[in-house]
Amino acid sequence: MQKEIRTVANGTVTTPKGFVAGATYAGLKTYAKDKLDLALLVSEAPCSAAGVFTQSTIVSATVPLSKSRMATGHARAIVVNSGCANACVGPQGMLDARAMAALAAKKAGVREDAVLVASTGMIGVELPMAAIRSGLNKIKMHHDGGAEFARAIITTDKAPKTAAVSITLDSKPCTIAAAAKGAGMIHPNMATMLCFVTTDAAVEPGALQWALKAAADKTFNMITVDGDTSTNDMIVVLANGMAGNDLVRAETSEAELLAEALEQVCLPLAKMIVKDGEGATKLMEVRVEGAVSQDDARKAARTIVSSPLVKSAVHGADPNWGRVIAALGRSGAALQESKTSLWIQEVCVFDQGTPIPFHKEAARTKMMEDDIVIVARLGMGTHDATAWGCDLSEDYVRFNSEYST
Amino acid sequence: MQKEIRTVANGTVTTPKGFVAGATYAGLKTYAKDKLDLALLVSEAPCSAAGVFTQSTIVSATVPLSKSRMATGHARAIVVNSGCANACVGPQGMLDARAMAALAAKKAGVREDAVLVASTGMIGVELPMAAIRSGLNKIKMHHDGGAEFARAIITTDKAPKTAAVSITLDSKPCTIAAAAKGAGMIHPNMATMLCFVTTDAAVEPGALQWALKAAADKTFNMITVDGDTSTNDMIVVLANGMAGNDLVRAETSEAELLAEALEQVCLPLAKMIVKDGEGATKLMEVRVEGAVSQDDARKAARTIVSSPLVKSAVHGADPNWGRVIAALGRSGAALQESKTSLWIQEVCVFDQGTPIPFHKEAARTKMMEDDIVIVARLGMGTHDATAWGCDLSEDYVRFNSEYST
Repeated sequence: MQKEIRTVANGTVTTPKGFVAGATYAGLKTYAKDKLDLALLVSEAPCSAAGVFTQSTIVSATVPLSKSRMATGHARAIVVNSGCANACVGPQGMLDARAMAALAAKKAGVREDAVLVASTGMIGVELPMAAIRSGLNKIKMHHDGGAEFARAIITTDKAPKTAAVSITLDSKPCTIAAAAKGAGMIHPNMATMLCFVTTDAAVEPGALQWALKAAADKTFNMITVDGDTSTNDMIVVLANGMAGNDLVRAETSEAELLAEALEQVCLPLAKMIVKDGEGATKLMEVRVEGAVSQDDARKAARTIVSSPLVKSAVHGADPNWGRVIAALGRSGAALQESKTSLWIQEVCVFDQGTPIPFHKEAARTKMMEDDIVIVARLGMGTHDATAWGCDLSEDYVRFNSEYST
Repeated sequence: MQKEIRTVANGTVTTPKGFVAGATYAGLKTYAKDKLDLALLVSEAPCSAAGVFTQSTIVSATVPLSKSRMATGHARAIVVNSGCANACVGPQGMLDARAMAALAAKKAGVREDAVLVASTGMIGVELPMAAIRSGLNKIKMHHDGGAEFARAIITTDKAPKTAAVSITLDSKPCTIAAAAKGAGMIHPNMATMLCFVTTDAAVEPGALQWALKAAADKTFNMITVDGDTSTNDMIVVLANGMAGNDLVRAETSEAELLAEALEQVCLPLAKMIVKDGEGATKLMEVRVEGAVSQDDARKAARTIVSSPLVKSAVHGADPNWGRVIAALGRSGAALQESKTSLWIQEVCVFDQGTPIPFHKEAARTKMMEDDIVIVARLGMGTHDATAWGCDLSEDYVRFNSEYST
């Protein structure tokens, strides 16, 4: 079995065989320059489908609706709007989400229950259904509509975000591609993370769900801009099988290759979202090694990368390692000070419980780079995890405190 | 039984009978204007003692040392330095903490194991023991040394923080007083919260510990500046019995009165710490009502008050309630959107799952006040909790990203 995963330059969600997409300006996203705000993605063949959704208790109606439609393991189309989250609007939210899916189903010529729905934008505002209706009619579907689709789903992101890779399954080339949007939060409540993945590989739904969850846990679930989880987050994948490979089943080496390929599509998108975080000027990577459990490694890495004091120090190029140790200490991960070591930009600052004198100006110069890497070795076990975040800048506060309701 | 709790104006830790205190400049706190940095508090009689300590896994040696000495339920003196946290310095940390306690015991004329130790300041720097030794010798103890003590324990706090109340137990007036320091974080890792409480009431150690924990859970444990827990946090109380009341025992109405009095001493100090948080311009109070459990009420209130997006909105006087709902949703508290209601500055913005149109400029004007009150009613049960925090301003980021290692 060939295990190579190749990057596909400029790939979009319509790069895999048998997907068409299109977008239009329906009049929802009044604040952005790039005014596409309603998009449709359709597969020409039925698809296996899998999804990972926000853990929040208060969610947009799009979340339970898409989740329930995915319960069958199948779906064929995704309709997305930006500019309105369709969240916290009472029972009208579900009525509108269903109506939007029904309109999209008619447009796409597929069954209503095969359409997934996603929204991102302002919380507490009802979807303008007349605009959605006339907008959907205007959308022109193309085999190269992926770039348009990627532009339409963003809110205040600085740029659209796409990635694609190809793998070989049963000598058949398969492509996996995705479009994501992130956390540009000039406008309120725009922190929604959406990611739509397409592939022409044939994959059994259970294997697809397992692979997506594995990839999300190592990528999107390990990034943070400000710790605020959205009401609308979702990642969904559609696999239409048009590559002609034998169906990939769970617990096979093919499923593992697929999970790795998904990870390689998701990771650059996750990093793009962090780099594009409001006010972000640096990418911070925190690697925790030698934890007692995977859960410990993950929570330690996430606590460090989320600490406002660590984020502020990274912003100021300050090799202030005490803040990292303090975050580690409150993370809840099992650790012993005397076994803990710490590196900032490859400079060892703390070795098995003892501070190491280091040249502060040299460390500071290294911290002026765009990518900051912090490594904590716990010496307690064999589990590792990596988390990504950004620095905390005055601009984050400025943008998010501007009156914009 | 008389249940009145009276505020004692300008009370300090030496206001209760039988406590003496003093402070000096030992040369540790080079950055502050007010240069007192080493302080000693001693009771003229043996005391019941109780404490609440940081939950962090990586802690200053002062934390396990003071904790273990308190295990007997007794202590008589507290020595505190600011300017150096004595944390993350390897085994030297415990040697120095013990040596500092031994020097203080000699100075105070009490047994070594009756001395508690606390430190606050830079992590990763060893205590300059020669400075501690000569400093302790210089301290002059007074019956009105409480104000000096309060000044010596602060780091970059804008002002010292003291509070006192009096109650009557068995017709005997008893005073309860405290000094606290907080989270002025111009310098790195100065977020340590320390609070020292004295009382001349006679209290059985178990009752004292229960009362302190109850008070801390409703006050200090419900405040947040930036979510970064320190390696050195501690609250300790010494009760010397010199008021002459009958010993207060656990599970009595006297113990309950004592807990209430402690709460009334701790609450203004907790609010002062939040108001004095780096870059803070507003005090935010978040009250969650009608939760299924106390734990749910507490975590919902704390999640809202800690949200960077909510804090930024409060800073900008933006009645952006979607951010509050989103924080509530990810808090993990059991809730149903259709039962949730929300008030910002007494304006109802969300009523049982439905957004309420409100006059935005009027709400904005109300949000320009210094004290912001947010109330979330969950309608799920009977448990309430209140949390306090501050807004997030550009100044927080500016101060904490300045190069200061």
